[in-house]
Amino acid sequence: MQVVIVGAGLVGSLLSLYLARLGYEVTVYERSPDVRRVRRSSYRSINLTLCERGLSALERVGMRQAVLAVSVAARGRVMHSASGELAYQPYGNAGEAIYSISRNGLNEVLLEAAQAEPGVRLCFEHECTGVDFATGELSILDQRAGRVFERRAERIVAADGAFSPLRGLALRQKRFDYSQEYSSQAYKELHMPPRADGDFALEPHALHIWPRGDYMLIAFPNADRSFTCSLHLPWEGGPPSHAALREDADVQRLFESAFPDALALMPDVVRDVRRNPLSAMATIRCEPWTLGPHVLLIGDAAHAILPSYGQGANSGFEDCLLLAEALTRHGHDWPAATADFQSRRKPEADAIARLCQEHFVELRALVGEPRFLLRKQLERRLNELYPRRFLDLYSMISFTRMSYVEALQVEERQRRLVDGLLAADGFERRFRAGDGDALLHAAMQTAEVAP
Amino acid sequence: MQVVIVGAGLVGSLLSLYLARLGYEVTVYERSPDVRRVRRSSYRSINLTLCERGLSALERVGMRQAVLAVSVAARGRVMHSASGELAYQPYGNAGEAIYSISRNGLNEVLLEAAQAEPGVRLCFEHECTGVDFATGELSILDQRAGRVFERRAERIVAADGAFSPLRGLALRQKRFDYSQEYSSQAYKELHMPPRADGDFALEPHALHIWPRGDYMLIAFPNADRSFTCSLHLPWEGGPPSHAALREDADVQRLFESAFPDALALMPDVVRDVRRNPLSAMATIRCEPWTLGPHVLLIGDAAHAILPSYGQGANSGFEDCLLLAEALTRHGHDWPAATADFQSRRKPEADAIARLCQEHFVELRALVGEPRFLLRKQLERRLNELYPRRFLDLYSMISFTRMSYVEALQVEERQRRLVDGLLAADGFERRFRAGDGDALLHAAMQTAEVAP
Repeated sequence: MQVVIVGAGLVGSLLSLYLARLGYEVTVYERSPDVRRVRRSSYRSINLTLCERGLSALERVGMRQAVLAVSVAARGRVMHSASGELAYQPYGNAGEAIYSISRNGLNEVLLEAAQAEPGVRLCFEHECTGVDFATGELSILDQRAGRVFERRAERIVAADGAFSPLRGLALRQKRFDYSQEYSSQAYKELHMPPRADGDFALEPHALHIWPRGDYMLIAFPNADRSFTCSLHLPWEGGPPSHAALREDADVQRLFESAFPDALALMPDVVRDVRRNPLSAMATIRCEPWTLGPHVLLIGDAAHAILPSYGQGANSGFEDCLLLAEALTRHGHDWPAATADFQSRRKPEADAIARLCQEHFVELRALVGEPRFLLRKQLERRLNELYPRRFLDLYSMISFTRMSYVEALQVEERQRRLVDGLLAADGFERRFRAGDGDALLHAAMQTAEVAP
Repeated sequence: MQVVIVGAGLVGSLLSLYLARLGYEVTVYERSPDVRRVRRSSYRSINLTLCERGLSALERVGMRQAVLAVSVAARGRVMHSASGELAYQPYGNAGEAIYSISRNGLNEVLLEAAQAEPGVRLCFEHECTGVDFATGELSILDQRAGRVFERRAERIVAADGAFSPLRGLALRQKRFDYSQEYSSQAYKELHMPPRADGDFALEPHALHIWPRGDYMLIAFPNADRSFTCSLHLPWEGGPPSHAALREDADVQRLFESAFPDALALMPDVVRDVRRNPLSAMATIRCEPWTLGPHVLLIGDAAHAILPSYGQGANSGFEDCLLLAEALTRHGHDWPAATADFQSRRKPEADAIARLCQEHFVELRALVGEPRFLLRKQLERRLNELYPRRFLDLYSMISFTRMSYVEALQVEERQRRLVDGLLAADGFERRFRAGDGDALLHAAMQTAEVAP
């Protein structure tokens, strides 16, 4: 049984392992050079975080440990106020962590494994330039040889990313619904080197956030003891906005006023902001995920989301696991398996897309407000008292594999419960005095909030 | 001042007249052969209807009469029930009409005028195959000569239709929001010839509708005394659905049961249904309508809508008028004029798109129900009593040039008024007895429904 995968990024390389283990002969065509030889500099993002969903999918093909070995565990968020005060929010009460890793590093680990897998053939600098959706005939440009060859494949999986060229060829297919929706914000990736003594410049086992309402800075720890920072600003307007950063002095002024503690740790920040490319962020939805009888879209090619929950790679990895399960369940009947896969997965993709659009605002605007912090403390206490019945949304998304759709429904019920508590006369005072537990127990008596 | 228009369809050819009259040297590139020499058979739709918006835009460049000369006025709708009964709904109390015309015929009239216009140069079989959005450099394939040439244009207007190839080249532009959303229905165009004596087979000065809930048939009068019919069915499911029409007998059975009076007038209907292509319908939205400093999208390329209100060509024609006004208002400062054009026009395009998606259901499902007919009669009576203060939605859309956004707001207020009347105890009986006017006057006393 032969399969072609288009794209050897994160999802394409993991999927090649899954399909080879199921007995397929897998050929992967990737238009870029091998990332192990040529570093991609203009790639979509340098860092990402893996959580339980992604790790489970890696584990199923024995890749969990190899990946964790090149990642840094972050066990909570550190909020940096404009005056330099820090507030720490652990992700959970049970040592839960997300794992910060470089995209290239993760891709390399997966490609090494794919390369070593008997059923996988990796073809870099091979660009899919055309496809006949009715027959499965592909046109592949071998960039090094400078020639195009044709090959037919019964089963083709497009894992060619958010701006999937293969999906682009389907836009004129009748009944192919499609949308791309850009965020009004964009980000620049910046470097925070280790301290002079070689250690991390900030607490390493955390994500660092400088929430400033309309804009923010985030820092992710790297295995080499540096941090990668993302500066999120509106495209225009302001200041601050990317358009308003016209001169070195504009950058200097922004960091002095909004991120002074970070500025002290980022010696090249002015140069980096002025020089580094601006990354746009889009939410992409489409339907169906099958294009004719031969092609299936997967990962970002099927559902690209904003990075607010760190779910892009995780949900793409989960796709691989679920597609493999569907293929097994349907005895490798591809039409049945892909239809099943889409019908289960599309509502999930829509739910996490919406969540990421909503949560992005929260990260920037709410995360630093006292009222938001109170809410987080209250949720945390509820989770301490009811570790199985009350998991906050972030935990449901990051530390479980429960359905995104269900997580949203549970969160809606929890929000009503927490709203009720916060609105109750005298609650805040009693809770802050450490005397709120009785009220929490009473509220949980009748609440239906369990995941 | 030079301008390039891509596309010599309805909007491109009318726009060439507008811009030439403003003093521009206009070159129009059209990838298809001249429709006056080679009939387009697989075109998007054979028939369309013009209303006040489109006619006003034609009038401004002196084209109203030439176009009306090849059209047929329809002054109302004739509803055909399954048992063959007819119900007539005039469009208005003042002889208002929409004008049924063939797309090719309309295009020919406009191309004749463009050809005769000194400032316009028409280049058929010239396909725009590439564009550099930053510089305005176009690659044009001259199909007859079999060669590609490059030319730069400071100002480029893409009037290349709902599936605009030029817009397709912009999909990877950062911050270009785009969506295409297909209807779950598709249609086939069918022919109803004149009677043996040469006259129209049905009342000619009307649109004919056979509403059947999930599906419908519509007939548009043609200047040659035939009718063009559109059979709207779901893509699949049913029966009826397009997928369920597998054999001649399926078609025969559908028409016998649902459209018997039409069947008697359409001798070749079984053959036509089996042979004619299926037309998909999509709503297309994008933003911005300017792609870099040189390119502007217009007409269907900027906003394609469902045909439910017959507004596709009309709103495209209105675009031409409004763009010309914006250019004049801004002294031919294109960046200012196109920004102004988009900021006024985009909310309008979104409003009519939504309206068409909602109204399509109404046409199929509600138009034939007694309750719907009662509502229509009530609205008509309100319009008779208050011809200036109460115009129904269809009239606001088709017989005025008022903003689509405002029309929607007025309709919302009217709907509440009519809902209130219909819900009032005993109203229906009194109204049907011709004794409802006092109640209507009372309701209008306090209503704020004026456009």
